[in-house]
Amino acid sequence: MATSEPRASGGDQDPNSANLRPPSTSRSSHSCLWFLQKNNSLEEKGRLAGQKNLLSCDNSDRDARFRHTETDFSNLFARDLLPAKNGEEPTIQFLLEVVDILTNYVKKTFDRSTKVLDFHHPHQLLEGMEGFNLELSEQPESLEQILVDCRDTLKYGVRTGHPRFFNQLSSGLDIIGLAGEWLTSTANTNMFTYEIAPVFVLMEQLTLKKMREMIGWPDGEGDGLFSPGGAISNMYSVMIARYKYFPEVKTKGMSAAPRLVLFTSEHSHYSIKKAGAALGFGTENVILLSTDERGRVIPADLEAKIIDAKQKGYVPLFVNATAGSTVYGAFDPINEIADICEKYNLWLHVDGAWGGGLLMSRKHRHKLSGVERANSVTWNPHKMMGVPLQCSAILVREKGIMAGCNSMCAGYLFQPDKQYDVTYDTGDKAIQCGRHVDIFKFWLMWKAKGTIGFEQHIDKCLDLSQYLYNKIKNREGYEMVFDGVPQHTNVCFWYIPPSLRGMPDGDERREKLHRVAPKIKAMMMESGTTMVGYQPQGNKVNFFRMVVSNPAATQSDIDFLIDEIERMGHDL
Amino acid sequence: MATSEPRASGGDQDPNSANLRPPSTSRSSHSCLWFLQKNNSLEEKGRLAGQKNLLSCDNSDRDARFRHTETDFSNLFARDLLPAKNGEEPTIQFLLEVVDILTNYVKKTFDRSTKVLDFHHPHQLLEGMEGFNLELSEQPESLEQILVDCRDTLKYGVRTGHPRFFNQLSSGLDIIGLAGEWLTSTANTNMFTYEIAPVFVLMEQLTLKKMREMIGWPDGEGDGLFSPGGAISNMYSVMIARYKYFPEVKTKGMSAAPRLVLFTSEHSHYSIKKAGAALGFGTENVILLSTDERGRVIPADLEAKIIDAKQKGYVPLFVNATAGSTVYGAFDPINEIADICEKYNLWLHVDGAWGGGLLMSRKHRHKLSGVERANSVTWNPHKMMGVPLQCSAILVREKGIMAGCNSMCAGYLFQPDKQYDVTYDTGDKAIQCGRHVDIFKFWLMWKAKGTIGFEQHIDKCLDLSQYLYNKIKNREGYEMVFDGVPQHTNVCFWYIPPSLRGMPDGDERREKLHRVAPKIKAMMMESGTTMVGYQPQGNKVNFFRMVVSNPAATQSDIDFLIDEIERMGHDL
Repeated sequence: MATSEPRASGGDQDPNSANLRPPSTSRSSHSCLWFLQKNNSLEEKGRLAGQKNLLSCDNSDRDARFRHTETDFSNLFARDLLPAKNGEEPTIQFLLEVVDILTNYVKKTFDRSTKVLDFHHPHQLLEGMEGFNLELSEQPESLEQILVDCRDTLKYGVRTGHPRFFNQLSSGLDIIGLAGEWLTSTANTNMFTYEIAPVFVLMEQLTLKKMREMIGWPDGEGDGLFSPGGAISNMYSVMIARYKYFPEVKTKGMSAAPRLVLFTSEHSHYSIKKAGAALGFGTENVILLSTDERGRVIPADLEAKIIDAKQKGYVPLFVNATAGSTVYGAFDPINEIADICEKYNLWLHVDGAWGGGLLMSRKHRHKLSGVERANSVTWNPHKMMGVPLQCSAILVREKGIMAGCNSMCAGYLFQPDKQYDVTYDTGDKAIQCGRHVDIFKFWLMWKAKGTIGFEQHIDKCLDLSQYLYNKIKNREGYEMVFDGVPQHTNVCFWYIPPSLRGMPDGDERREKLHRVAPKIKAMMMESGTTMVGYQPQGNKVNFFRMVVSNPAATQSDIDFLIDEIERMGHDL
Repeated sequence: MATSEPRASGGDQDPNSANLRPPSTSRSSHSCLWFLQKNNSLEEKGRLAGQKNLLSCDNSDRDARFRHTETDFSNLFARDLLPAKNGEEPTIQFLLEVVDILTNYVKKTFDRSTKVLDFHHPHQLLEGMEGFNLELSEQPESLEQILVDCRDTLKYGVRTGHPRFFNQLSSGLDIIGLAGEWLTSTANTNMFTYEIAPVFVLMEQLTLKKMREMIGWPDGEGDGLFSPGGAISNMYSVMIARYKYFPEVKTKGMSAAPRLVLFTSEHSHYSIKKAGAALGFGTENVILLSTDERGRVIPADLEAKIIDAKQKGYVPLFVNATAGSTVYGAFDPINEIADICEKYNLWLHVDGAWGGGLLMSRKHRHKLSGVERANSVTWNPHKMMGVPLQCSAILVREKGIMAGCNSMCAGYLFQPDKQYDVTYDTGDKAIQCGRHVDIFKFWLMWKAKGTIGFEQHIDKCLDLSQYLYNKIKNREGYEMVFDGVPQHTNVCFWYIPPSLRGMPDGDERREKLHRVAPKIKAMMMESGTTMVGYQPQGNKVNFFRMVVSNPAATQSDIDFLIDEIERMGHDL
């Protein structure tokens, strides 16, 4: 049902703060010349031009600079925008109106007086909040309704850039990165060939080389690409390792190889197991390695398990060393693992999705010591380096092996008789065909911050995390999940409510403690004041995992989090 | 080396049209109040506020509405933006400056007097165009330089939304979709849990249900998600099929299954073979089916090859039917293939990456007749439906099987004891962990256009393609690659230069003809006037594959393309 009256997003006022504008006034946009320009008719434009001169505004550049003027969107529809005839003016005004919504959102994201989220249960949003109906229909909605939908989408979402959002390894809202994403989506192209993404393809190539230099591979040589996230990057590493040792699997399948086994820490990311399942190894052939109390792989356990596997007639293929584990932030001892991999001729992959960013810091990069001995590395700039989602790199030491592993030489896409050097076409070394442009925002951020900008960000986050650690390690009501200063920004702890403090360790206390973090988290989300993750790990009941990657966070936000946990958990 | 003087992007003027603004004036942005506000100092702000009142501008809403004012970016750096203290004003001004660049780009994209691209060879861009240096450095660049970099990135790129860009199955620049992408990147969140993407997760769920309804599955029931492109969607289908028939492969690997074979057309997308290689089947176990002269699978050939495989002791598992092949735009006869799949108990996947959009058209959806019998379907709204890249859905008829196939139950991400209904968390059914938000732009476009808007777009593109077909089918100098009206918008043809028209068929003519399309394409790219793809197929030498998915294209653009081909090819 087409409607020119938008369903108002009123009634249920945004509790986070005042609405940007009440919907009833959403037509009366304000520019400093709004009183001169009531509509977009040609007569009005002519009149305006005169006024502009009168006001000494530069009129010669009219085409190059758009002004945000009052537009009535209630009778405009998508079909009135470009490429429609006379679509230029409504197109620009519509986009500027959207930008107005977005810049307001950006501003509020950094405002501590606003909430992190305005929580609603799925059934509430599905039933439809006032004026916000998710259902799709046959007929178009007016652009006014579309603008309301944009506001409501942000209103009921989560401000992942808020200084008190600590829920995920990816947090923060980098303004340069954001601008980069806006440009990327405007360019709307695809990474598979130089032909349609010449600049982006070269940026990817140069940036990957820079990353390989930071890993320490000679002259930054090697291979790589940006993939849709760390799990896919890790999957690439397993595929490439298999191709290196058993290239015939590409054509003949896994039956051409002996029983191959992969090794990874019990604390490692589940994507190694997912890759084992997907690629036809089977999860039983992903052997989990024991860790020390800090979550780091015990090298002797790796060697013992390799020997055991060989004795059973299996063929060890691949070892994943985690640089920055998801929960503890642990760094496996890469050099010791590399020694073993060399001894047994195994592929060494370093999953630095979370910890790779520390390579940018002179103070902290020693935690990845030995990474230059890896055959492949996963490194997600969208985590510790604050690049907007998504931005994950798979980097490979041996040049050409990615193409060997994945190429199918599809003639309709990768024509060898193009007029340019087709070695710049990247598509055939990917498992994807089309590939999203994930490089530009990262390249632009690197330009804008310099390597030292990333270093400062990382050092600051690690300092903040140490501040938290120092604050709670001896504080009443807290128990650390592991002893010692965390290696990464992960600080893992239990909050012990007063009711549990005197209770002896045992099943009852464990069961009660297991329920504390979920209850506090639920209260946090209901109140919307802050967000932090929790989870169990092994035989340890639910605990909080605090991580700092948000450039907006300060010591006061850490203090706030602790105050909130105590306020909410005190009476549990 | 930090520099406050940007490397000017001058010298090499953008040949596409006049520069937006010469770099030398890039500091002197224009707003109607520029003469009142020379910088962002507090004094100036105070003075401005007074002036605004004087000019009767609405001042009460200052926080809710940002004005684009003159800002000197040469002494501003990324570190001056939010979350920096007093960072709000420069942040907003920087973003508005970027938006100014982008809206100018949008406007020029639709302007036929501008070029599609300004071609440079990789070595030229790598050596550095004047003022455009791709290298990354230790020290930050000024925001002024960053803005120059943004302009140059667009300048040397390809305008995929230009009315004369026909090079890819994805083309066009949808304004609503663009706004959706801008919002998505501002929200900067991740699809894996409802917790941090409540609105987007529900939008995905509702939109996938709507797509399943259009496929024809009862009540739109089933499963699915948006994946990073059609190749990954197709890979999902193979994984899920394997899990359906041989669930033990997940834990035990491919050695737990007999020799499994997959069937797909010789005209199908290479991603089925890539999936075969990646997932451990081996490309030799991807059996290619013969097609008729229009590129459609011959069902009898499928049955013969199934029988042959069984006789060899292999186990047929999976059949891919293509709905809209990449080159010919052919639709395999789904119903006849489904009959065979039922008879032999095989998984039927329909790769509708390109052709799926025709389900939105009452006139053309019959081409996918039988799709409701498929077990899984790939459908890329980023192709025929004009949604910005990337947006690809894998849809599965059986509910719950995706989670069965892919879940690893990672406790640190998917806690069962959350306060909301965790069945809305989608992460564990994906092979990815983090997943980019690809849904919002599509949902927003659907809202803004309605189903009928997509239908009109699709019908128009098919009409245009028929216009091209009618224009050249009997025209001197053209040979069609296959006879008859194309099923999709793909029109495949050779242009025969006068020098080859009298030549008898044979190796010499074939070799010469093979070089015609690449030569014309190279000239097109050098002149930048239009872009269309070419490729060989089977024993057919290089031919043009024209496709229409760009909503901006009109008959005059088709005429222009043909004129260009004749102009450039006449003397070959």
